[in-house]
Amino acid sequence: MKMLICCSFDGSNYHGYQVQRGGGVTVQSELNRAARELFGYECDIVGCSRTDAGVHARMFCAAISKRGRSDLPTALPPTKLPRALSAHLPEDICVYNAVEVEDEFHPRYAVIAKEYEYRYFVREVRDPFESNRSWHMPLPLHPDAVVKMNRAAAHFCGKHDFTSFMAQGSKIVDATRTVYQAGVTQEGNVMTFRVCADGFLYHMVRIMAGTLIECVTGQAPRDPDSIPAVIAAHDRASAGRTAPAHGLYLNRVEYPNHIFL
Amino acid sequence: MKMLICCSFDGSNYHGYQVQRGGGVTVQSELNRAARELFGYECDIVGCSRTDAGVHARMFCAAISKRGRSDLPTALPPTKLPRALSAHLPEDICVYNAVEVEDEFHPRYAVIAKEYEYRYFVREVRDPFESNRSWHMPLPLHPDAVVKMNRAAAHFCGKHDFTSFMAQGSKIVDATRTVYQAGVTQEGNVMTFRVCADGFLYHMVRIMAGTLIECVTGQAPRDPDSIPAVIAAHDRASAGRTAPAHGLYLNRVEYPNHIFL
Repeated sequence: MKMLICCSFDGSNYHGYQVQRGGGVTVQSELNRAARELFGYECDIVGCSRTDAGVHARMFCAAISKRGRSDLPTALPPTKLPRALSAHLPEDICVYNAVEVEDEFHPRYAVIAKEYEYRYFVREVRDPFESNRSWHMPLPLHPDAVVKMNRAAAHFCGKHDFTSFMAQGSKIVDATRTVYQAGVTQEGNVMTFRVCADGFLYHMVRIMAGTLIECVTGQAPRDPDSIPAVIAAHDRASAGRTAPAHGLYLNRVEYPNHIFL
Repeated sequence: MKMLICCSFDGSNYHGYQVQRGGGVTVQSELNRAARELFGYECDIVGCSRTDAGVHARMFCAAISKRGRSDLPTALPPTKLPRALSAHLPEDICVYNAVEVEDEFHPRYAVIAKEYEYRYFVREVRDPFESNRSWHMPLPLHPDAVVKMNRAAAHFCGKHDFTSFMAQGSKIVDATRTVYQAGVTQEGNVMTFRVCADGFLYHMVRIMAGTLIECVTGQAPRDPDSIPAVIAAHDRASAGRTAPAHGLYLNRVEYPNHIFL
């Protein structure tokens, strides 16, 4: 049987999750190396999504099996796997869980929901501990920033065609996605936008994050209640800029219970 | 007049705060360079304490003046200084506050209290986001770990001779210090030991942190109520190991109000 592993990684030093044609170190290439070192054979490791360079993950799922097969021959019980694999990984990647799943399981197609988080650090001067972990907002924001952004975010909820929030040039035919939850909270100097949906388009969360911040910055901020019109426009140009990758975290990936053995 | 600056830094990439004879990049050497670039002349920068390699600071104070003088000639108002200096600093150091102080001010001798924090990350597998920011405790701890450690920490409070909690070879004559507050809290997988005192001996917090964790680990854990005997022994060997530098943070430095102009 296949194994599903849960990883977390600080994406700062990686060219994204997926192995690249041009080379470059990726999270997947590190997982491949670690698995080869631990098991003594090549593995197929299939991730739950692609992530851009610099994007982080608190929970990223991948299926692992011996190359060309649907099982993972090993004497190690699943409970020992996380620590054993992590021992072969660099400090900025770890595997913290492993469970057996059915052979037909595909970590990308089986996803029923994912949650992303986007972090803004709001202070005149940047913070060394937030370097590469949030988007620094040095501007004084509107005093009710969280309230306004939260109001704007609420409009993302529901089933919509999110073409306005999709990177130009994407080859997606149907841009309809269902957003289950979307909101903005603040703790100290950090504002956090969390969004949960059945699926996401390329750059969707980063464009949402870039649009939300435009509701509380600049001379003529966006009206939080203009979001429905932005969605309805089906036009990338109507939304805001794409927020930088280093503020984005994949928080959670959800699968149906039946896949677990 | 002199300027007092407040910095924070992630110490992972530095050989401590203080400029070293043998060279090596330190926080002070970076501050010196940044000040030279900003003001166009050499500066004297005197820190509130030395810190070991890998130790972090959320608030570290330093006095800055033109070399050999007691003032800092500049057209920049203090409110603009933090951002201007930070622009010349690497991502892992920032200056977030600057205030004018009296000429006689010495950032080390004027300190009336300091607070340190020591962070433990408690989970079987390490966390990429805690790499270099906490001490990883993979062992299963005693279920009442926080309660026990907190009970042990309470014994540090008061005026004591802390010879048992001082690195061997220190040339300090009087090891008496007054601890105002000491306690351990837990949030998620992170346990935090915070201690506030009128002054600290070399490695004092790290030895305290190493001793506290011995109250909740191993086959024969220390009795939390044995701490008074450890203090009374006046013997480094009676305390626990020195916890690693990367879990330690200088949190706060306190000065009397009269120094501020």
